[in-house]
Amino acid sequence: MSNSGLYSPGLSHRLTRMNYQVIGFTIGSILAILGIFQLFPALLDYYDGHRNAQIFYFCGVVSLFFGGALVIANKNFKMDVTIRQAFLLTTLSWIFMATFSALPIYIANPKLDYAKSFFEGMSAITTTGSTVLVGLDDMSRGLLLWRSILQMIGGLGIIAFAIVLLPHLKIGGMHLFKTETSDRSDKPVARTTTLVRMLVYVYLFLMGLCMLAYKVLGMSWFDAMNHAMTTVSTGGFSTHDASFGHFGSVAMEVTCMIFMLCGGIPFILYVYALYGRWQNILADEQVKGLLAMLAVFISVLTVWLWLNSEYSIYQSLRYVSFNVISLITTTGYATTDYNPWGPFASMCILFITYLGACAGSTSGGIKTMRLIIVGRVLRKHLKNLIYPNGVFIANYQGRAVSDEEGLNIMGFLGLFVALNVLLTLLLTMTGVDLMTAISGAATATANVGPGLGAVIGPAGNFATLNDTALWLLSLGMLLGRLEILTVAVILSMRFWKG
Amino acid sequence: MSNSGLYSPGLSHRLTRMNYQVIGFTIGSILAILGIFQLFPALLDYYDGHRNAQIFYFCGVVSLFFGGALVIANKNFKMDVTIRQAFLLTTLSWIFMATFSALPIYIANPKLDYAKSFFEGMSAITTTGSTVLVGLDDMSRGLLLWRSILQMIGGLGIIAFAIVLLPHLKIGGMHLFKTETSDRSDKPVARTTTLVRMLVYVYLFLMGLCMLAYKVLGMSWFDAMNHAMTTVSTGGFSTHDASFGHFGSVAMEVTCMIFMLCGGIPFILYVYALYGRWQNILADEQVKGLLAMLAVFISVLTVWLWLNSEYSIYQSLRYVSFNVISLITTTGYATTDYNPWGPFASMCILFITYLGACAGSTSGGIKTMRLIIVGRVLRKHLKNLIYPNGVFIANYQGRAVSDEEGLNIMGFLGLFVALNVLLTLLLTMTGVDLMTAISGAATATANVGPGLGAVIGPAGNFATLNDTALWLLSLGMLLGRLEILTVAVILSMRFWKG
Repeated sequence: MSNSGLYSPGLSHRLTRMNYQVIGFTIGSILAILGIFQLFPALLDYYDGHRNAQIFYFCGVVSLFFGGALVIANKNFKMDVTIRQAFLLTTLSWIFMATFSALPIYIANPKLDYAKSFFEGMSAITTTGSTVLVGLDDMSRGLLLWRSILQMIGGLGIIAFAIVLLPHLKIGGMHLFKTETSDRSDKPVARTTTLVRMLVYVYLFLMGLCMLAYKVLGMSWFDAMNHAMTTVSTGGFSTHDASFGHFGSVAMEVTCMIFMLCGGIPFILYVYALYGRWQNILADEQVKGLLAMLAVFISVLTVWLWLNSEYSIYQSLRYVSFNVISLITTTGYATTDYNPWGPFASMCILFITYLGACAGSTSGGIKTMRLIIVGRVLRKHLKNLIYPNGVFIANYQGRAVSDEEGLNIMGFLGLFVALNVLLTLLLTMTGVDLMTAISGAATATANVGPGLGAVIGPAGNFATLNDTALWLLSLGMLLGRLEILTVAVILSMRFWKG
Repeated sequence: MSNSGLYSPGLSHRLTRMNYQVIGFTIGSILAILGIFQLFPALLDYYDGHRNAQIFYFCGVVSLFFGGALVIANKNFKMDVTIRQAFLLTTLSWIFMATFSALPIYIANPKLDYAKSFFEGMSAITTTGSTVLVGLDDMSRGLLLWRSILQMIGGLGIIAFAIVLLPHLKIGGMHLFKTETSDRSDKPVARTTTLVRMLVYVYLFLMGLCMLAYKVLGMSWFDAMNHAMTTVSTGGFSTHDASFGHFGSVAMEVTCMIFMLCGGIPFILYVYALYGRWQNILADEQVKGLLAMLAVFISVLTVWLWLNSEYSIYQSLRYVSFNVISLITTTGYATTDYNPWGPFASMCILFITYLGACAGSTSGGIKTMRLIIVGRVLRKHLKNLIYPNGVFIANYQGRAVSDEEGLNIMGFLGLFVALNVLLTLLLTMTGVDLMTAISGAATATANVGPGLGAVIGPAGNFATLNDTALWLLSLGMLLGRLEILTVAVILSMRFWKG
């Protein structure tokens, strides 16, 4: 994270030529980090006497060599990042991470073609958690650890992106976040470096705490560590085919729910808490909104399931609360297959899949902040219809939301819907059935993990999809993870014009 | 239409007490008209010697008596319509029309309960075209004529509502229409009366032309008349269970496509044409946009169907073009069951179901104007991301769209989506399967007619749904027809305050 100074709030808006050196240096650093982190699975598999040790060692060296070469070639970069470079830099970072992280997965699984491996890598680094791997329980521990490490890195990357860079890109109302992270400071670069460092500490501290809790409750150290990494990053990869349902422990599930929620609230609030401003967490409108939504979804679905299944009210509450929290934080663990719960539950789950938790966290989807603002803008709109001459204001965190900002956020929602429609259409063209296509597009663009139906539901596996569908879903995960526009802008002709 | 003066552009924005007399007088007039129109099916069934003649005579007298009483009781109304009254007036008008039009349907079909009859009445008067009646080919001609007359009245009502009243309610960007209908006139009431009279002439002229074309091509006078009424009103009721597929004539299908499109473009353009400004029709952005969308959908789906079915390219083009035009104009005739066309076609059809044709026409759905403006606002947004300091403008019909207007339209889309999600959830709660619920909500709120799947697809029938689902769909049709907000505003507490 030594390059955090790059993500300085002082982004230049000038139209200069592309500064490819900054991009090369940053991507090189990321690949070097990926290479170094592959030593951990290599050591673990070496300790276990598994042949995958060599694969991780080899891929780690490749990554490190490639990354190192990029860093050295571009070491004289100028600290000068324009808006356009920021877009390109972010998109390329995630593509390179997915490509290189897929390499050991590809080599270690001879039956897996590259489309599936790339899908797995993209799913890991975007903290989605959809998997094409079957037989996790018998897999080399190094490979399982690698998937968890990727989600940890991906989660951290997205927090840094969301809190430091995104507010400056004016994407989907994320600049409303800017006022909070306060760039009124005189030393933006120094301040940003401090901020990112503190975020890393908080992130690792939460993971450590989560791991200890899991261990105390009976998981092995290995399971505890892996699940801690994929819980706090709201990634959702598990070391077992049965996902979190494998453990069958209420205490572990409650712990998991708490830490998924911890991963789903804005990380900047933890930094405030470190400065003694604990009360900010519960006063935050996103946190309040998220908890309110959860209260509604969980109570409605629990009562529904209790009345319409053989579950007791306690069992209903247990299954519903875990899976709803897992879906809304876009983690994607499952403790049961919810497809037999019937059409109403399926529709609720599909709806929840799109939502996501708070902006500025590791979760994907539309995000609570946008839902709150859209709700208030619509309410203002409704009032204005009744009183055309009245003056009404939509507030968010004690600050008026302008029409332009409202439009910005609605525009994001429009693009999110458009992306989902387009992706669903393309998926059905590859021969995928309608429910798999709709829920597949949803779970990919919102970075959740499981879809609906027998094919890609909690009891299914993405390996059954064709390669074209997997490439499309990989693209969907990338677009969803980077708030669509970061990638879409690069695809526009205008982006490349002088 | 003697009350057209009420819909004067000089709507008062003052917060006065509700003027229930205007509402009573208008609804009374509408019911009286409904009563008079029931004489036609009564006479037809009397001529055919069918017992339904008495039913229509009885219901007609009830309607006329009830309406007449309301007119007489409120004959001293003051010509003073506030915004709030306009909302209430419109919503109540459609509810009363559905209620009274369902009466003869209820009495004439002993097996039909009132939920189904009300659904049929609402489907008719909102020009949706979903039906709960089976065995149309053996039904009394009076009853078939009654359904067609209702769609004719409903279509005319919605044009008057969209062109005269809606621009003043500021709903979903419909005030962008205002500049065209030009209320710069010195005599708004006189001008509006003239406008509505001309719209009636155009509407009836198109229907007459359509009827003659059908007759020349081989339909019976009865079939030609009924289908002309339900084609131009984009209603979609047929006199046969096999819908338009009954005739199996390419020439009739092409004629039908032309007149469905005539019903789907802004009727104000015909008025311009009467003043010699023919070129306005093809210069209109909505018309151009609608034709462009049709070109894309029809060509893509035709090629897809040709490659993925046993149809020849000619058969593919024939089926696709008719059904796509029928869906996008929200008519809802079908010439074949498109469910076996596979997931891609189903997803396309579901998507097209939401769209609708032009604002200011008889069609429902989101409407071309809104799609164009949202597209341009999003494009402007994208440009601004790349050039944060650039100044870009979204234009519509040569006029800049302000942020507030953009937000207004996006707000409508947000509500449309929210309504669909809510309706789908409620439908699944009644036990309806997911595809039926999603497509049922879509086809109701967009006033199309058929849904997807075996239950409510072109080969199915809404009679198989439970009564709760039918009430919900009736509400969906009402909300969709009146642009959601007209009804939603009345349900808000604030509406009823001082």
